[in-house]
Amino acid sequence: MASEINDTSKLCIHTITNKPWDIETAAARYAEAGVKGITVWRNALEGKDVANTGEMIRGHGLEVVSLCRGGFFPHLEKQKRKEAIEENKKIVEEAEALGAPMVVLVCGAEPRQSLEDSRKQIRDGIIETLDHAREHNVKLAIEPLHPMYADTRSAINTLRQANDMAENIQSSHLGIAVDVYHLWWDEDLEQEIARCGRNGNLLAFHVCDWKVPTNDFLLDRGLMGEGCINVPQIREWVENAGFNGMNEVEIFSSTYWEMDQDEYLDNIVKAYLEYV
Amino acid sequence: MASEINDTSKLCIHTITNKPWDIETAAARYAEAGVKGITVWRNALEGKDVANTGEMIRGHGLEVVSLCRGGFFPHLEKQKRKEAIEENKKIVEEAEALGAPMVVLVCGAEPRQSLEDSRKQIRDGIIETLDHAREHNVKLAIEPLHPMYADTRSAINTLRQANDMAENIQSSHLGIAVDVYHLWWDEDLEQEIARCGRNGNLLAFHVCDWKVPTNDFLLDRGLMGEGCINVPQIREWVENAGFNGMNEVEIFSSTYWEMDQDEYLDNIVKAYLEYV
Repeated sequence: MASEINDTSKLCIHTITNKPWDIETAAARYAEAGVKGITVWRNALEGKDVANTGEMIRGHGLEVVSLCRGGFFPHLEKQKRKEAIEENKKIVEEAEALGAPMVVLVCGAEPRQSLEDSRKQIRDGIIETLDHAREHNVKLAIEPLHPMYADTRSAINTLRQANDMAENIQSSHLGIAVDVYHLWWDEDLEQEIARCGRNGNLLAFHVCDWKVPTNDFLLDRGLMGEGCINVPQIREWVENAGFNGMNEVEIFSSTYWEMDQDEYLDNIVKAYLEYV
Repeated sequence: MASEINDTSKLCIHTITNKPWDIETAAARYAEAGVKGITVWRNALEGKDVANTGEMIRGHGLEVVSLCRGGFFPHLEKQKRKEAIEENKKIVEEAEALGAPMVVLVCGAEPRQSLEDSRKQIRDGIIETLDHAREHNVKLAIEPLHPMYADTRSAINTLRQANDMAENIQSSHLGIAVDVYHLWWDEDLEQEIARCGRNGNLLAFHVCDWKVPTNDFLLDRGLMGEGCINVPQIREWVENAGFNGMNEVEIFSSTYWEMDQDEYLDNIVKAYLEYV
Protein backbone atom coordinates (compact mmCIF):
# COMPACT_ATOMS: atom_id res chain seq x y z
CA MET A 1 0.00 0.00 0.00
CA ALA A 2 1.09 3.52 -0.76
CA SER A 3 1.22 5.84 2.25
CA GLU A 4 -2.08 7.56 2.97
CA ILE A 5 -2.53 11.07 1.61
CA ASN A 6 -4.60 13.05 4.11
CA ASP A 7 -3.38 16.53 3.38
CA THR A 8 -1.57 18.67 0.82
CA SER A 9 1.79 18.65 2.58
CA LYS A 10 3.42 16.84 -0.35
CA LEU A 11 1.45 18.50 -3.12
CA CYS A 12 3.49 20.38 -5.71
CA ILE A 13 2.01 21.91 -8.87
CA HIS A 14 3.77 22.78 -12.13
CA THR A 15 3.10 26.34 -13.22
CA ILE A 16 2.20 25.06 -16.71
CA THR A 17 -0.80 23.30 -15.14
CA ASN A 18 -2.37 26.72 -14.52
CA LYS A 19 -0.86 28.31 -17.60
CA PRO A 20 -3.31 31.28 -17.71
CA TRP A 21 -1.95 32.53 -14.36
CA ASP A 22 1.23 34.51 -14.10
CA ILE A 23 3.66 33.16 -11.53
CA GLU A 24 2.70 35.69 -8.85
CA THR A 25 -0.95 34.66 -9.06
CA ALA A 26 -0.06 30.96 -9.17
CA ALA A 27 2.17 31.21 -6.08
CA ALA A 28 -0.44 33.16 -4.12
CA ARG A 29 -3.30 30.84 -5.07
CA TYR A 30 -1.28 27.68 -4.42
CA ALA A 31 -0.31 28.93 -0.97
CA GLU A 32 -3.95 29.75 -0.14
CA ALA A 33 -4.97 26.25 -1.26
CA GLY A 34 -2.39 24.59 0.98
CA VAL A 35 -0.11 23.52 -1.87
CA LYS A 36 3.46 23.22 -0.59
CA GLY A 37 5.63 23.02 -3.69
CA ILE A 38 5.89 24.63 -7.09
CA THR A 39 7.77 23.52 -10.17
CA VAL A 40 8.48 26.52 -12.32
CA TRP A 41 8.29 26.38 -16.10
CA ARG A 42 10.65 28.74 -17.87
CA ASN A 43 7.86 30.51 -19.77
CA ALA A 44 6.59 31.72 -16.39
CA LEU A 45 9.91 33.49 -15.82
CA GLU A 46 10.01 35.47 -19.04
CA GLY A 47 10.65 39.15 -18.33
CA LYS A 48 11.01 38.50 -14.58
CA ASP A 49 13.93 38.86 -12.24
CA VAL A 50 14.58 35.21 -11.49
CA ALA A 51 16.12 35.59 -8.02
CA ASN A 52 13.31 37.90 -6.90
CA THR A 53 10.77 35.44 -8.23
CA GLY A 54 12.35 32.71 -6.14
CA GLU A 55 12.11 34.98 -3.07
CA MET A 56 8.49 35.78 -3.89
CA ILE A 57 7.66 32.05 -4.07
CA ARG A 58 9.39 31.24 -0.79
CA GLY A 59 7.68 34.26 0.77
CA HIS A 60 4.42 32.38 0.23
CA GLY A 61 5.82 29.41 2.14
CA LEU A 62 6.24 27.38 -1.03
CA GLU A 63 9.23 25.22 -1.89
CA VAL A 64 10.65 25.47 -5.41
CA VAL A 65 10.85 21.81 -6.41
CA SER A 66 12.34 22.10 -9.88
CA LEU A 67 12.82 24.18 -12.98
CA CYS A 68 11.27 22.87 -16.21
CA ARG A 69 12.96 22.34 -18.51
CA GLY A 70 16.33 21.76 -20.08
CA GLY A 71 17.43 19.15 -22.59
CA PHE A 72 16.85 18.96 -26.36
CA PHE A 73 20.45 17.93 -26.95
CA PRO A 74 20.27 16.01 -30.27
CA HIS A 75 20.86 17.87 -33.53
CA LEU A 76 22.33 16.92 -36.87
CA GLU A 77 24.75 19.87 -36.78
CA LYS A 78 27.59 19.95 -34.26
CA GLN A 79 27.17 23.71 -33.84
CA LYS A 80 23.57 23.30 -32.77
CA ARG A 81 24.55 20.61 -30.27
CA LYS A 82 27.08 23.04 -28.79
CA GLU A 83 24.42 25.74 -28.59
CA ALA A 84 22.09 23.32 -26.82
CA ILE A 85 24.75 22.61 -24.22
CA GLU A 86 25.36 26.34 -23.70
CA GLU A 87 21.61 26.84 -23.30
CA ASN A 88 21.48 24.07 -20.70
CA LYS A 89 24.29 25.68 -18.75
CA LYS A 90 22.26 28.91 -18.70
CA ILE A 91 19.25 26.97 -17.45
CA VAL A 92 21.36 25.53 -14.65
CA GLU A 93 22.31 29.08 -13.62
CA GLU A 94 18.67 30.11 -13.83
CA ALA A 95 17.77 27.24 -11.50
CA GLU A 96 20.41 28.34 -9.04
CA ALA A 97 19.15 31.93 -9.13
CA LEU A 98 15.59 30.73 -8.63
CA GLY A 99 16.63 28.45 -5.79
CA ALA A 100 15.51 25.31 -7.62
CA PRO A 101 17.57 22.27 -6.68
CA MET A 102 16.92 20.51 -9.97
CA VAL A 103 16.40 20.98 -13.71
CA VAL A 104 14.12 18.50 -15.48
CA LEU A 105 15.47 17.36 -18.84
CA VAL A 106 13.27 16.66 -21.83
CA CYS A 107 16.17 15.15 -23.64
CA GLY A 108 15.12 15.61 -27.28
CA ALA A 109 15.28 13.55 -30.47
CA GLU A 110 16.21 14.27 -34.07
CA PRO A 111 13.91 12.42 -36.48
CA ARG A 112 16.49 12.45 -39.31
CA GLN A 113 18.87 10.22 -37.37
CA SER A 114 18.50 6.99 -35.40
CA LEU A 115 17.27 6.98 -31.82
CA GLU A 116 20.59 5.40 -30.91
CA ASP A 117 22.48 8.36 -32.37
CA SER A 118 20.17 10.76 -30.56
CA ARG A 119 20.81 8.93 -27.30
CA LYS A 120 24.58 9.25 -27.81
CA GLN A 121 24.16 12.99 -28.30
CA ILE A 122 21.97 13.20 -25.19
CA ARG A 123 24.63 11.39 -23.22
CA ASP A 124 27.34 13.75 -24.52
CA GLY A 125 25.16 16.77 -23.79
CA ILE A 126 24.45 15.70 -20.23
CA ILE A 127 28.13 14.98 -19.56
CA GLU A 128 29.08 18.39 -20.95
CA THR A 129 26.50 20.10 -18.73
CA LEU A 130 27.23 18.17 -15.54
CA ASP A 131 30.36 20.03 -14.39
CA HIS A 132 28.41 23.23 -14.55
CA ALA A 133 25.51 21.63 -12.67
CA ARG A 134 27.87 20.45 -9.94
CA GLU A 135 29.50 23.86 -9.61
CA HIS A 136 26.11 25.51 -9.22
CA ASN A 137 24.77 22.74 -7.01
CA VAL A 138 21.85 21.95 -9.28
CA LYS A 139 20.84 18.41 -10.20
CA LEU A 140 19.77 17.27 -13.65
CA ALA A 141 16.81 14.90 -13.88
CA ILE A 142 16.35 12.84 -17.05
CA GLU A 143 12.63 12.48 -17.76
CA PRO A 144 11.88 9.46 -19.95
CA LEU A 145 9.01 10.37 -22.29
CA HIS A 146 6.24 8.19 -23.73
CA PRO A 147 7.22 6.40 -26.98
CA MET A 148 4.72 8.59 -28.84
CA TYR A 149 7.25 11.41 -28.37
CA ALA A 150 10.19 9.46 -29.79
CA ASP A 151 10.10 11.41 -33.05
CA THR A 152 11.19 14.83 -31.73
CA ARG A 153 10.88 15.17 -27.96
CA SER A 154 12.85 12.34 -26.44
CA ALA A 155 14.90 9.38 -27.58
CA ILE A 156 14.66 8.15 -23.98
CA ASN A 157 11.30 6.43 -23.83
CA THR A 158 11.46 3.95 -20.99
CA LEU A 159 12.65 4.08 -17.41
CA ARG A 160 15.08 1.31 -18.26
CA GLN A 161 16.78 3.57 -20.81
CA ALA A 162 16.92 6.42 -18.30
CA ASN A 163 18.34 4.09 -15.65
CA ASP A 164 20.92 2.75 -18.10
CA MET A 165 22.04 6.26 -18.94
CA ALA A 166 22.10 7.60 -15.38
CA GLU A 167 24.02 4.56 -14.14
CA ASN A 168 26.43 4.75 -17.01
CA ILE A 169 27.21 8.44 -16.48
CA GLN A 170 27.04 8.10 -12.70
CA SER A 171 27.05 11.48 -11.03
CA SER A 172 25.79 12.81 -7.72
CA HIS A 173 24.16 15.54 -9.81
CA LEU A 174 22.27 13.35 -12.26
CA GLY A 175 19.06 11.45 -11.64
CA ILE A 176 15.61 10.74 -13.07
CA ALA A 177 12.09 12.19 -13.00
CA VAL A 178 9.35 9.52 -13.11
CA ASP A 179 6.09 10.70 -14.73
CA VAL A 180 3.12 8.35 -14.65
CA TYR A 181 1.82 9.71 -17.98
CA HIS A 182 4.90 8.55 -19.84
CA LEU A 183 5.55 5.27 -18.12
CA TRP A 184 2.28 3.72 -16.90
CA TRP A 185 2.03 1.19 -19.78
CA ASP A 186 5.45 -0.40 -19.19
CA GLU A 187 5.38 -3.91 -17.72
CA ASP A 188 8.89 -3.37 -16.34
CA LEU A 189 7.89 -0.24 -14.45
CA GLU A 190 7.84 -1.66 -10.92
CA GLN A 191 11.27 -3.24 -11.23
CA GLU A 192 12.78 -0.23 -12.99
CA ILE A 193 11.45 2.13 -10.30
CA ALA A 194 13.01 -0.10 -7.66
CA ARG A 195 16.29 -0.08 -9.58
CA CYS A 196 16.09 3.71 -9.93
CA GLY A 197 15.68 4.16 -6.18
CA ARG A 198 18.28 1.55 -5.29
CA ASN A 199 20.87 3.43 -7.31
CA GLY A 200 19.98 6.79 -5.80
CA ASN A 201 18.59 8.18 -9.02
CA LEU A 202 14.92 8.76 -8.19
CA LEU A 203 14.66 12.54 -7.98
CA ALA A 204 11.08 13.44 -8.89
CA PHE A 205 7.57 12.04 -9.27
CA HIS A 206 5.03 13.62 -11.63
CA VAL A 207 1.32 12.77 -11.73
CA CYS A 208 -1.70 13.33 -13.96
CA ASP A 209 -3.88 10.84 -15.88
CA TRP A 210 -4.31 9.35 -19.37
CA LYS A 211 -7.79 10.22 -20.64
CA VAL A 212 -9.82 7.64 -22.52
CA PRO A 213 -10.00 8.70 -25.28
CA THR A 214 -7.10 11.13 -25.55
CA ASN A 215 -7.61 13.62 -28.38
CA ASP A 216 -4.35 15.50 -28.63
CA PHE A 217 -0.75 14.34 -28.51
CA LEU A 218 0.27 17.09 -26.13
CA LEU A 219 -2.56 19.08 -24.63
CA ASP A 220 -5.15 16.57 -23.47
CA ARG A 221 -3.82 15.22 -20.20
CA GLY A 222 -6.33 14.35 -17.52
CA LEU A 223 -6.76 15.08 -13.84
CA MET A 224 -5.83 12.18 -11.64
CA GLY A 225 -8.79 9.80 -11.41
CA GLU A 226 -10.36 10.57 -14.74
CA GLY A 227 -8.23 8.24 -16.84
CA CYS A 228 -6.78 4.73 -16.87
CA ILE A 229 -3.55 5.16 -14.88
CA ASN A 230 -3.36 3.50 -11.48
CA VAL A 231 -1.53 6.41 -9.86
CA PRO A 232 -1.60 5.09 -6.24
CA GLN A 233 -0.01 1.84 -7.44
CA ILE A 234 2.85 3.69 -9.09
CA ARG A 235 3.21 6.00 -6.07
CA GLU A 236 3.54 2.89 -3.89
CA TRP A 237 6.36 1.61 -6.08
CA VAL A 238 8.05 5.02 -5.94
CA GLU A 239 7.76 5.18 -2.16
CA ASN A 240 8.96 1.60 -1.81
CA ALA A 241 12.01 2.69 -3.79
CA GLY A 242 12.77 5.23 -1.07
CA PHE A 243 11.32 8.37 -2.60
CA ASN A 244 9.83 10.79 -0.10
CA GLY A 245 9.74 14.01 -2.09
CA MET A 246 6.74 15.93 -3.37
CA ASN A 247 4.06 14.59 -5.68
CA GLU A 248 4.06 16.99 -8.62
CA VAL A 249 0.90 17.64 -10.61
CA GLU A 250 1.84 18.39 -14.21
CA ILE A 251 -1.11 18.69 -16.60
CA PHE A 252 -1.08 20.21 -20.08
CA SER A 253 -4.68 20.61 -21.15
CA SER A 254 -6.21 23.11 -23.53
CA THR A 255 -9.57 22.17 -22.00
CA TYR A 256 -8.51 22.95 -18.43
CA TRP A 257 -6.66 26.10 -19.47
CA GLU A 258 -10.01 27.44 -20.68
CA MET A 259 -11.63 26.84 -17.28
CA ASP A 260 -11.85 29.28 -14.40
CA GLN A 261 -8.46 28.59 -12.83
CA ASP A 262 -9.63 28.97 -9.22
CA GLU A 263 -12.29 26.33 -9.76
CA TYR A 264 -9.73 24.16 -11.57
CA LEU A 265 -7.29 24.46 -8.65
CA ASP A 266 -10.04 23.25 -6.30
CA ASN A 267 -10.51 20.25 -8.58
CA ILE A 268 -6.78 19.55 -8.63
CA VAL A 269 -6.61 19.53 -4.84
CA LYS A 270 -9.67 17.22 -4.62
CA ALA A 271 -8.25 14.87 -7.25
CA TYR A 272 -4.93 14.87 -5.44
CA LEU A 273 -6.50 13.90 -2.13
CA GLU A 274 -8.66 11.19 -3.69
CA TYR A 275 -6.72 9.71 -6.60
CA VAL A 276 -2.98 10.08 -5.95
CA MET B 1 21.43 -5.10 -45.94
CA ALA B 2 17.80 -5.83 -46.66
CA SER B 3 17.18 -7.60 -49.96
CA GLU B 4 16.75 -5.23 -52.90
CA ILE B 5 13.21 -4.35 -53.89
CA ASN B 6 13.10 -3.94 -57.67
CA ASP B 7 9.50 -4.81 -58.34
CA THR B 8 6.09 -5.16 -56.72
CA SER B 9 6.18 -8.95 -56.44
CA LYS B 10 6.04 -8.77 -52.64
CA LEU B 11 3.75 -5.76 -52.36
CA CYS B 12 0.50 -6.30 -50.49
CA ILE B 13 -1.94 -3.51 -49.64
CA HIS B 14 -4.57 -3.42 -46.89
CA THR B 15 -8.00 -2.47 -48.21
CA ILE B 16 -8.30 0.13 -45.43
CA THR B 17 -5.41 2.00 -47.06
CA ASN B 18 -7.71 2.86 -49.97
CA LYS B 19 -10.84 3.04 -47.84
CA PRO B 20 -12.91 5.03 -50.40
CA TRP B 21 -12.73 2.10 -52.86
CA ASP B 22 -15.05 -0.88 -52.58
CA ILE B 23 -13.22 -4.18 -52.64
CA GLU B 24 -13.94 -4.87 -56.32
CA THR B 25 -12.36 -1.56 -57.32
CA ALA B 26 -9.43 -2.07 -54.97
CA ALA B 27 -8.70 -5.57 -56.31
CA ALA B 28 -8.91 -4.42 -59.94
CA ARG B 29 -6.72 -1.36 -59.39
CA TYR B 30 -4.15 -3.24 -57.31
CA ALA B 31 -3.86 -5.91 -60.02
CA GLU B 32 -3.38 -3.23 -62.72
CA ALA B 33 -0.66 -1.61 -60.60
CA GLY B 34 1.23 -4.88 -60.20
CA VAL B 35 0.35 -5.32 -56.53
CA LYS B 36 0.43 -9.02 -55.68
CA GLY B 37 -1.31 -9.31 -52.33
CA ILE B 38 -4.31 -7.90 -50.53
CA THR B 39 -5.18 -7.89 -46.85
CA VAL B 40 -8.92 -7.57 -46.48
CA TRP B 41 -10.49 -5.50 -43.73
CA ARG B 42 -13.85 -6.76 -42.55
CA ASN B 43 -15.64 -3.48 -43.33
CA ALA B 44 -14.86 -4.16 -47.02
CA LEU B 45 -16.84 -7.42 -46.80
CA GLU B 46 -20.05 -5.97 -45.40
CA GLY B 47 -23.03 -7.07 -47.49
CA LYS B 48 -20.82 -9.25 -49.72
CA ASP B 49 -20.68 -12.99 -50.26
CA VAL B 50 -17.33 -13.71 -48.66
CA ALA B 51 -16.40 -16.82 -50.68
CA ASN B 52 -17.27 -15.11 -53.96
CA THR B 53 -15.20 -12.09 -52.90
CA GLY B 54 -12.24 -14.39 -52.33
CA GLU B 55 -12.74 -15.84 -55.81
CA MET B 56 -13.00 -12.37 -57.30
CA ILE B 57 -9.70 -11.36 -55.67
CA ARG B 58 -7.87 -14.48 -56.85
CA GLY B 59 -9.39 -13.96 -60.30
CA HIS B 60 -7.30 -10.78 -60.46
CA GLY B 61 -4.17 -12.79 -59.70
CA LEU B 62 -3.96 -11.42 -56.17
CA GLU B 63 -3.15 -13.45 -53.08
CA VAL B 64 -5.29 -12.90 -49.98
CA VAL B 65 -2.65 -12.35 -47.29
CA SER B 66 -4.83 -11.89 -44.23
CA LEU B 67 -8.15 -10.85 -42.80
CA CYS B 68 -8.15 -7.81 -40.49
CA ARG B 69 -9.11 -8.06 -37.76
CA GLY B 70 -10.11 -10.15 -34.77
CA GLY B 71 -9.25 -9.67 -31.12
CA PHE B 72 -10.68 -7.24 -28.55
CA PHE B 73 -10.85 -9.98 -25.95
CA PRO B 74 -10.69 -8.05 -22.63
CA HIS B 75 -13.93 -7.02 -20.93
CA LEU B 76 -14.97 -6.53 -17.34
CA GLU B 77 -18.01 -8.83 -17.78
CA LYS B 78 -17.53 -12.54 -18.35
CA GLN B 79 -20.48 -12.61 -20.77
CA LYS B 80 -18.83 -10.02 -23.00
CA ARG B 81 -15.59 -11.99 -22.99
CA LYS B 82 -17.55 -15.06 -24.14
CA GLU B 83 -19.19 -13.01 -26.87
CA ALA B 84 -15.79 -11.76 -28.02
CA ILE B 85 -14.57 -15.35 -28.33
CA GLU B 86 -17.66 -16.33 -30.32
CA GLU B 87 -17.09 -13.33 -32.58
CA ASN B 88 -13.48 -14.37 -33.12
CA LYS B 89 -14.60 -17.88 -34.07
CA LYS B 90 -16.89 -16.33 -36.68
CA ILE B 91 -14.00 -14.25 -37.99
CA VAL B 92 -11.94 -17.43 -38.33
CA GLU B 93 -14.73 -18.95 -40.44
CA GLU B 94 -14.91 -15.78 -42.49
CA ALA B 95 -11.17 -16.02 -43.15
CA GLU B 96 -11.56 -19.61 -44.28
CA ALA B 97 -14.43 -18.66 -46.61
CA LEU B 98 -12.38 -15.79 -48.01
CA GLY B 99 -9.34 -18.00 -48.46
CA ALA B 100 -7.24 -15.94 -46.04
CA PRO B 101 -4.62 -18.04 -44.23
CA MET B 102 -4.49 -15.70 -41.24
CA VAL B 103 -6.49 -13.39 -39.01
CA VAL B 104 -4.67 -10.39 -37.51
CA LEU B 105 -5.54 -9.79 -33.84
CA VAL B 106 -5.83 -6.33 -32.34
CA CYS B 107 -6.00 -7.83 -28.91
CA GLY B 108 -7.85 -5.12 -26.98
CA ALA B 109 -7.58 -3.52 -23.54
CA GLU B 110 -10.07 -2.53 -20.87
CA PRO B 111 -9.07 0.77 -19.22
CA ARG B 112 -10.97 -0.02 -15.99
CA GLN B 113 -8.67 -2.93 -15.17
CA SER B 114 -4.91 -3.43 -15.14
CA LEU B 115 -2.99 -4.20 -18.31
CA GLU B 116 -1.93 -7.43 -16.65
CA ASP B 117 -5.56 -8.48 -16.21
CA SER B 118 -6.29 -7.53 -19.81
CA ARG B 119 -3.35 -9.64 -20.96
CA LYS B 120 -4.68 -12.63 -19.01
CA GLN B 121 -8.03 -12.24 -20.75
CA ILE B 122 -6.30 -11.93 -24.13
CA ARG B 123 -4.43 -15.13 -23.42
CA ASP B 124 -7.64 -16.93 -22.41
CA GLY B 125 -9.44 -15.58 -25.49
CA ILE B 126 -6.71 -16.71 -27.86
CA ILE B 127 -6.58 -20.18 -26.30
CA GLU B 128 -10.37 -20.49 -26.57
CA THR B 129 -10.25 -19.48 -30.24
CA LEU B 130 -7.28 -21.62 -31.24
CA ASP B 131 -9.03 -25.00 -31.59
CA HIS B 132 -11.44 -23.40 -33.99
CA ALA B 133 -8.57 -21.78 -35.89
CA ARG B 134 -6.82 -25.15 -36.20
CA GLU B 135 -9.97 -26.91 -37.42
CA HIS B 136 -10.46 -24.27 -40.09
CA ASN B 137 -6.77 -24.09 -40.92
CA VAL B 138 -6.50 -20.37 -40.21
CA LYS B 139 -3.65 -18.86 -38.21
CA LEU B 140 -4.01 -16.11 -35.62
CA ALA B 141 -1.43 -13.31 -35.59
CA ILE B 142 -1.01 -11.20 -32.46
CA GLU B 143 -0.21 -7.63 -33.48
CA PRO B 144 1.53 -5.71 -30.70
CA LEU B 145 0.30 -2.10 -30.77
CA HIS B 146 2.11 1.14 -29.88
CA PRO B 147 1.94 2.04 -26.17
CA MET B 148 -0.26 5.03 -27.08
CA TYR B 149 -3.01 2.45 -27.70
CA ALA B 150 -2.64 0.74 -24.31
CA ASP B 151 -5.80 2.37 -22.97
CA THR B 152 -8.36 0.59 -25.16
CA ARG B 153 -6.86 -1.10 -28.23
CA SER B 154 -4.15 -3.39 -27.00
CA ALA B 155 -2.58 -4.43 -23.72
CA ILE B 156 0.20 -6.00 -25.82
CA ASN B 157 2.48 -3.07 -26.60
CA THR B 158 5.89 -4.52 -27.34
CA LEU B 159 7.15 -7.37 -29.47
CA ARG B 160 8.63 -8.88 -26.33
CA GLN B 161 5.14 -9.18 -24.83
CA ALA B 162 3.81 -10.72 -28.03
CA ASN B 163 6.73 -13.16 -28.13
CA ASP B 164 6.19 -14.06 -24.48
CA MET B 165 2.53 -14.80 -25.12
CA ALA B 166 3.02 -16.72 -28.37
CA GLU B 167 5.79 -18.84 -26.86
CA ASN B 168 3.76 -19.46 -23.73
CA ILE B 169 0.68 -20.62 -25.65
CA GLN B 170 2.75 -22.35 -28.31
CA SER B 171 0.60 -23.40 -31.24
CA SER B 172 1.26 -24.07 -34.91
CA HIS B 173 -1.71 -21.76 -35.53
CA LEU B 174 -0.54 -18.77 -33.49
CA GLY B 175 2.08 -16.20 -34.46
CA ILE B 176 2.79 -12.48 -34.64
CA ALA B 177 2.34 -9.56 -37.04
CA VAL B 178 5.18 -6.99 -36.89
CA ASP B 179 4.13 -3.44 -37.79
CA VAL B 180 6.84 -0.79 -38.03
CA TYR B 181 4.43 1.95 -36.89
CA HIS B 182 3.87 0.29 -33.53
CA LEU B 183 7.36 -0.97 -32.81
CA TRP B 184 9.97 1.31 -34.42
CA TRP B 185 10.88 3.11 -31.18
CA ASP B 186 11.76 -0.04 -29.20
CA GLU B 187 15.47 -0.53 -28.54
CA ASP B 188 14.89 -4.28 -28.20
CA LEU B 189 13.29 -4.53 -31.62
CA GLU B 190 16.12 -6.22 -33.51
CA GLN B 191 16.61 -8.93 -30.90
CA GLU B 192 12.88 -9.50 -30.44
CA ILE B 193 12.37 -9.83 -34.22
CA ALA B 194 15.18 -12.40 -34.29
CA ARG B 195 13.55 -14.26 -31.40
CA CYS B 196 10.18 -14.10 -33.15
CA GLY B 197 11.59 -15.68 -36.30
CA ARG B 198 13.69 -18.23 -34.42
CA ASN B 199 10.58 -19.53 -32.71
CA GLY B 200 8.58 -19.72 -35.93
CA ASN B 201 6.20 -16.95 -34.92
CA LEU B 202 6.88 -14.25 -37.51
CA LEU B 203 3.77 -14.34 -39.71
CA ALA B 204 3.36 -10.85 -41.14
CA PHE B 205 5.17 -7.56 -41.78
CA HIS B 206 3.27 -4.25 -42.03
CA VAL B 207 4.78 -0.97 -43.23
CA CYS B 208 3.92 2.73 -43.27
CA ASP B 209 5.66 5.71 -41.63
CA TRP B 210 5.43 7.93 -38.54
CA LYS B 211 4.85 11.51 -39.65
CA VAL B 212 6.64 14.37 -37.90
CA PRO B 213 4.49 15.85 -36.51
CA THR B 214 1.64 13.37 -36.21
CA ASN B 215 -1.68 15.11 -35.66
CA ASP B 216 -4.12 12.33 -34.92
CA PHE B 217 -3.86 9.25 -32.74
CA LEU B 218 -5.36 7.01 -35.42
CA LEU B 219 -5.76 8.58 -38.83
CA ASP B 220 -2.50 10.35 -39.59
CA ARG B 221 -0.12 7.61 -40.67
CA GLY B 222 2.39 8.47 -43.35
CA LEU B 223 3.56 6.93 -46.59
CA MET B 224 6.88 5.16 -46.30
CA GLY B 225 9.67 7.73 -46.64
CA GLU B 226 7.81 10.72 -45.29
CA GLY B 227 8.39 10.07 -41.62
CA CYS B 228 11.09 9.04 -39.15
CA ILE B 229 10.92 5.22 -39.33
CA ASN B 230 13.89 3.43 -40.87
CA VAL B 231 11.73 0.87 -42.70
CA PRO B 232 14.55 -0.82 -44.68
CA GLN B 233 16.44 -1.42 -41.43
CA ILE B 234 13.47 -3.14 -39.85
CA ARG B 235 12.79 -5.10 -43.05
CA GLU B 236 16.38 -6.33 -42.93
CA TRP B 237 15.88 -7.58 -39.38
CA VAL B 238 12.64 -9.27 -40.42
CA GLU B 239 14.31 -10.95 -43.40
CA ASN B 240 17.28 -11.98 -41.28
CA ALA B 241 14.76 -13.64 -38.99
CA GLY B 242 13.66 -15.82 -41.91
CA PHE B 243 10.56 -13.96 -43.04
CA ASN B 244 9.97 -14.08 -46.79
CA GLY B 245 6.28 -13.17 -47.01
CA MET B 246 4.71 -10.05 -48.45
CA ASN B 247 5.38 -6.49 -47.30
CA GLU B 248 1.98 -5.15 -46.39
CA VAL B 249 1.18 -1.45 -46.72
CA GLU B 250 -1.32 -0.47 -44.03
CA ILE B 251 -2.04 3.26 -43.81
CA PHE B 252 -4.95 4.92 -42.03
CA SER B 253 -5.01 8.54 -43.11
CA SER B 254 -7.92 10.92 -43.35
CA THR B 255 -5.68 13.08 -45.55
CA TYR B 256 -4.93 10.33 -48.05
CA TRP B 257 -8.52 9.08 -48.03
CA GLU B 258 -9.51 12.50 -49.38
CA MET B 259 -7.08 12.21 -52.30
CA ASP B 260 -7.81 10.82 -55.73
CA GLN B 261 -7.23 7.13 -54.97
CA ASP B 262 -5.64 6.28 -58.33
CA GLU B 263 -3.04 8.99 -57.82
CA TYR B 264 -2.56 7.83 -54.23
CA LEU B 265 -2.00 4.24 -55.37
CA ASP B 266 0.72 5.47 -57.74
CA ASN B 267 2.35 7.21 -54.78
CA ILE B 268 2.11 4.06 -52.67
CA VAL B 269 3.86 2.00 -55.34
CA LYS B 270 6.60 4.63 -55.74
CA ALA B 271 7.09 4.88 -51.98
CA TYR B 272 7.21 1.10 -51.76
CA LEU B 273 9.92 0.82 -54.41
CA GLU B 274 12.00 3.61 -52.90
CA TYR B 275 11.51 3.50 -49.12
CA VAL B 276 10.66 -0.06 -48.07
